Amino acid sequence: MDNFLKINKKINSVVKYEAGLSKLADKKKIIKLSSNENSFGASFKVKKILSKLDNKVFRYPDPQGTKLKKAISKKYKVNKNNIICGNGSDEILATIAKIFSGPGDEILFSEYGFLMYPIASQLAGAKGIKVKDINYRNSLKNFTKAITKKTKIIFIANPNNPTGTYLNNKELKDFVSKLPKRILLVIDSAYAEYVNRKDYSSGFDFVKKNKNVIMTRTFSKIYGLAGLRLGWAYCPKYIVDIFNKVRLPFNINLAAIEAGVAALSDNKFYLKSVKHNSYYLEWLKKEIINLGLIPIPSVANFILVKFPGKGKFTAKNVNNYLLSKGIILRGVEAYGLKDFLRISIGKKNELASLIKFLKIYFKKK
Amino acid sequence: MDNFLKINKKINSVVKYEAGLSKLADKKKIIKLSSNENSFGASFKVKKILSKLDNKVFRYPDPQGTKLKKAISKKYKVNKNNIICGNGSDEILATIAKIFSGPGDEILFSEYGFLMYPIASQLAGAKGIKVKDINYRNSLKNFTKAITKKTKIIFIANPNNPTGTYLNNKELKDFVSKLPKRILLVIDSAYAEYVNRKDYSSGFDFVKKNKNVIMTRTFSKIYGLAGLRLGWAYCPKYIVDIFNKVRLPFNINLAAIEAGVAALSDNKFYLKSVKHNSYYLEWLKKEIINLGLIPIPSVANFILVKFPGKGKFTAKNVNNYLLSKGIILRGVEAYGLKDFLRISIGKKNELASLIKFLKIYFKKK
Repeated sequence: MDNFLKINKKINSVVKYEAGLSKLADKKKIIKLSSNENSFGASFKVKKILSKLDNKVFRYPDPQGTKLKKAISKKYKVNKNNIICGNGSDEILATIAKIFSGPGDEILFSEYGFLMYPIASQLAGAKGIKVKDINYRNSLKNFTKAITKKTKIIFIANPNNPTGTYLNNKELKDFVSKLPKRILLVIDSAYAEYVNRKDYSSGFDFVKKNKNVIMTRTFSKIYGLAGLRLGWAYCPKYIVDIFNKVRLPFNINLAAIEAGVAALSDNKFYLKSVKHNSYYLEWLKKEIINLGLIPIPSVANFILVKFPGKGKFTAKNVNNYLLSKGIILRGVEAYGLKDFLRISIGKKNELASLIKFLKIYFKKK
Repeated sequence: MDNFLKINKKINSVVKYEAGLSKLADKKKIIKLSSNENSFGASFKVKKILSKLDNKVFRYPDPQGTKLKKAISKKYKVNKNNIICGNGSDEILATIAKIFSGPGDEILFSEYGFLMYPIASQLAGAKGIKVKDINYRNSLKNFTKAITKKTKIIFIANPNNPTGTYLNNKELKDFVSKLPKRILLVIDSAYAEYVNRKDYSSGFDFVKKNKNVIMTRTFSKIYGLAGLRLGWAYCPKYIVDIFNKVRLPFNINLAAIEAGVAALSDNKFYLKSVKHNSYYLEWLKKEIINLGLIPIPSVANFILVKFPGKGKFTAKNVNNYLLSKGIILRGVEAYGLKDFLRISIGKKNELASLIKFLKIYFKKK
């Protein structure tokens, strides 16, 4: 590092997050099924609010996001004093890791878990430990086995991204009850709104009844606000206090606050999105099977699909073919899943196009 | 901490940032001169863009902010590969502190410096050291004296907030040339656009010629985008690379990117804002003196005013009186300046109201 300033070791070793593709140089019209956004866009109520922001943006946003917390509190029936908001749930995950762990500590997450978990661990200077899945499903048994004296945080996404699988309420309840109280469990329920299973719990009860559990949520998926960066978490009060001390004073922007409030008020749009997802998740699963491919059972707004390891129909070849048709899926090599592609539940016509081209490629009718 | 999780020591000791007041419970119409925003709001071109965001916000923002960096590069005539963007310049300051300092290190900043500097130092686990001003002006002599083997970063705002004073090009050039290369100098030029002095430099040349200098800027002031959170910095390339590795993947939101690009394209609005500021800064200074008060010489879009230490006309009493009239100034006790109030250069009618009420309070005609 000649002629350069000395960089903190823990910082220097961080691996950069690579976002999914979102543009294709040679295509004007693209179908993007790579980032699990709400393909309907944002609700009409949100659109109306955005067009009225013009006279507000020059003022600093409310550093407490009071209006937004009230709206979340009302919609999800939780005390507003137990809510924190972040510049996407990313910020919450990274900040929580910094608060509760440091050099010498260990953080556990699934081998096929959201890429922000290893990044958050590295940024905190802690050691990230990958825990083996069983059948592409988080294994709580393996998590329990991986716990050491150094374990400070466990990140579990439920449903899990990119696999789409979930843990049921009973399994999680049992896990939480046996978890040492000195370990923080972060339940990342980014896709909770899409799950239609009766034995699923997004985690409210676990937070309510334990001092070592928090649940994170996002406005990037069902509410269609990925561009504005807005996430929140339901936490014990002492975690709210410390988070609010260490976050940036104005971590969430005014457009996110205003659009977030509007999004929460539009139940019709929410229900339409859920209904669409339930239907097309099943539809897509069947079409995938029909093509001779293997979909991992998903309850979220995406499906992870397994492709043959060799030959013309590998994930890489299929992906390149689809890209040439303007269709963007999410390659998941970075997750250690090189034989897989992840497909977001897009709009009807987007999914129809995808299946049409896949059928051509696989020469099926 | 019974029953609670263990919190990292360096995190637990952080002092919370208190933002300026922005609402008054009993007032509908308020005049806010407390946060140095552009009182004209945002430019018309920005307003037009915001109303067209509706169909874009559901997608994740470009993690590289390419479009925005190109626009900054064009406007400020710098290489786009030497630009980083942040969720406000706050994020850049905090992240830079984490990259280049840690426990055992020292960070220097003015005794009357922006409150984010001590916060950024604490978040990095480094020790913040206050350096004495001379006549409310950053003293480079005192900065030089304060340097120890442990010094890793020096934060200097130029012009300085909340004092409004500045260091000239020659002074800074001399300081940079003598600064040990192992120390990073962060020149925070948040108010640069407002300065109309020929001997002022916002810092481009210092960054260009040195590997240990960066300059931060913001869209929150002259461009009127405080609500959307957008800051940037001009850096040596190796700092760009490490920053982009450790920031959140989607740290800047889509509304900020789009509005930022539009803001940079509206030179007419920019010039109007600069012209207004030059005129009313002088005007306000004279009115302040006319009231028998002492303004600190300012080149920014605010003035720090000294009030008597005792009696009816203390900063606290005047502030309370003005609040009762719906006028919000910035109290600066948190900066160790309890006898002072900071006044943003608002619109003509806002400043006229302020002076009218001050004259009534001070019984001057």
